[in-house]
Amino acid sequence: MGGGPTTADLVVAVAQAGGLGFLAAGYKSVEAMSAEIANVREGAGAGFGVNVFVPQPRADPVVVEQYVETLAADAARLDTRLGEASWDDDSFDAKVEYLLADPVPIVSFTFGCPDRDVVEALQHVGTPVAITVTSPSEAVIAAAAGADCLCVQGTEAGAHQGTFVNADAPGQDFGLLALLSEVSRVCDLPMIAAGGIGGPRGMDAVLAAGAVVAQAGTAFLRCPESGTNPTYRAALTDPRYTVTAMTRAFSGRRARGLLNQFMVDHADAPAAYPEINNATRPLRAAAAAEGDADRMSLWAGQAFRSAVDRPAGEVVELLTRGVHS
Amino acid sequence: MGGGPTTADLVVAVAQAGGLGFLAAGYKSVEAMSAEIANVREGAGAGFGVNVFVPQPRADPVVVEQYVETLAADAARLDTRLGEASWDDDSFDAKVEYLLADPVPIVSFTFGCPDRDVVEALQHVGTPVAITVTSPSEAVIAAAAGADCLCVQGTEAGAHQGTFVNADAPGQDFGLLALLSEVSRVCDLPMIAAGGIGGPRGMDAVLAAGAVVAQAGTAFLRCPESGTNPTYRAALTDPRYTVTAMTRAFSGRRARGLLNQFMVDHADAPAAYPEINNATRPLRAAAAAEGDADRMSLWAGQAFRSAVDRPAGEVVELLTRGVHS
Repeated sequence: MGGGPTTADLVVAVAQAGGLGFLAAGYKSVEAMSAEIANVREGAGAGFGVNVFVPQPRADPVVVEQYVETLAADAARLDTRLGEASWDDDSFDAKVEYLLADPVPIVSFTFGCPDRDVVEALQHVGTPVAITVTSPSEAVIAAAAGADCLCVQGTEAGAHQGTFVNADAPGQDFGLLALLSEVSRVCDLPMIAAGGIGGPRGMDAVLAAGAVVAQAGTAFLRCPESGTNPTYRAALTDPRYTVTAMTRAFSGRRARGLLNQFMVDHADAPAAYPEINNATRPLRAAAAAEGDADRMSLWAGQAFRSAVDRPAGEVVELLTRGVHS
Repeated sequence: MGGGPTTADLVVAVAQAGGLGFLAAGYKSVEAMSAEIANVREGAGAGFGVNVFVPQPRADPVVVEQYVETLAADAARLDTRLGEASWDDDSFDAKVEYLLADPVPIVSFTFGCPDRDVVEALQHVGTPVAITVTSPSEAVIAAAAGADCLCVQGTEAGAHQGTFVNADAPGQDFGLLALLSEVSRVCDLPMIAAGGIGGPRGMDAVLAAGAVVAQAGTAFLRCPESGTNPTYRAALTDPRYTVTAMTRAFSGRRARGLLNQFMVDHADAPAAYPEINNATRPLRAAAAAEGDADRMSLWAGQAFRSAVDRPAGEVVELLTRGVHS
């Protein structure tokens, strides 16, 4: 979980409860990433990993500009300006270089498949590599790149989908159960199941479906250790927000969140990540500062009502209650 | 499974293997429905039910006509005409009347929630009622109408979605796992899980997720007892068809099928069921007769690659292999 909710405290608490917590390298400098690694290393031991965003191709600047212009009224309402719709690679090479020099227990990638030499280099320093996939065809590509395991992400999942190509295409809407079934038909890598797992039954279900472990994000959003913004946190239990939907409105990449006014108003957002994410950053920050939930990205998976306001260690215990019983 | 694949032989074979087979009342006259019931009664015993379509509101004829005009080239290519884009209620009242006079072991409804008096009348003659739901809010409505159990249908499912209202709205894309979780939070009715269940692991998974039983459709499409059209049957294993997608192109109601040219060409189909279904009937029939898979509705769930060409009894055995073990 990038963008705030994941903190060193959250990762340490999950690790100390027997889970594996992932630090989010995305949206951070190498220095910030390395500082977080240093912060969790002692407390989390081998119970943590780092998630890295794979760089995206540049979008058509004309298309980006046309979309960003439609956000002017939102920015004005919040008395802020839009940011520059710039492209960046999230310091991918430098992050990989750092993770090779100072290895962590596991690295996962999302938004695409890293080159085979990146995967092998990490493996060479003793770090297993997970690659996030959302379809059987992506699983085949990830296996060919040498992944040690797959993070199999269903459409139920909150926040960004890890789809390799940021474009509208059929076959991107796999439910987790069918996806686990179809991925296991085309490759035999261990599967980490992600998407809509909010309680022990969901955990048991994905293990029965063939996953070796379950990954939860939304389930931890309300934990005291998480860095979830207070307005975002309140929205998760606000009866005004009843459903989640996919949107590109905030970032230019498909992500699932509580359906709010910004998503309704900007349903036509193009595929342009990270350009749009960079353009909306000040707007989202201003909305958060003002407590304007309808102009913030309220990322959440379909089982968001299962998220509880309990310490992360108790959430790990809750999720795994049925396992081994 | 309406429209052909479900036959009396298929229902009897499923029942004799210990399953519960559903006859499809949809698209049939009362006489045809009653003849099918008569055909399965001896062989299936208590192991069958009847699925009934709930009537839909009439669509705007102008919108329907505009869409139907876009299908002219397809009809011409198949040397056929389009049917009349007429509304009908699928003889709902007469079917219910028949099922009250000559009760069957279970009745399920789809495409909406029947009135409470219909539910109670069926229960009064000893027939339990299942209502198909695709969201927690629909589950609440079905429970209030007095349903005995819910058919909980995830987005993975093949063919028509049972969504109560035929309109684009957020929150209609629940994956089965998250849906089971969220429905069980808002009502305590027994859940029949449907959508993407192609093998024993899927079956085990939905039971772990809280369902009491699993419903499979696509898994039976290749059985010798099923009435699946040969071209449709061949498409299920044709490497040309790699993904499924939701479409209204064939029927005016959201349904999942193998992505083919007709779906690509008519992605803009409006919500108008059964008007569009009636209009495309001759076109679909002509395409089937010519073996033109790209103009047929190739309904299939996301786990369609798991469907096997084996007798229905063996498919039941395969699906339940892990259960009770």
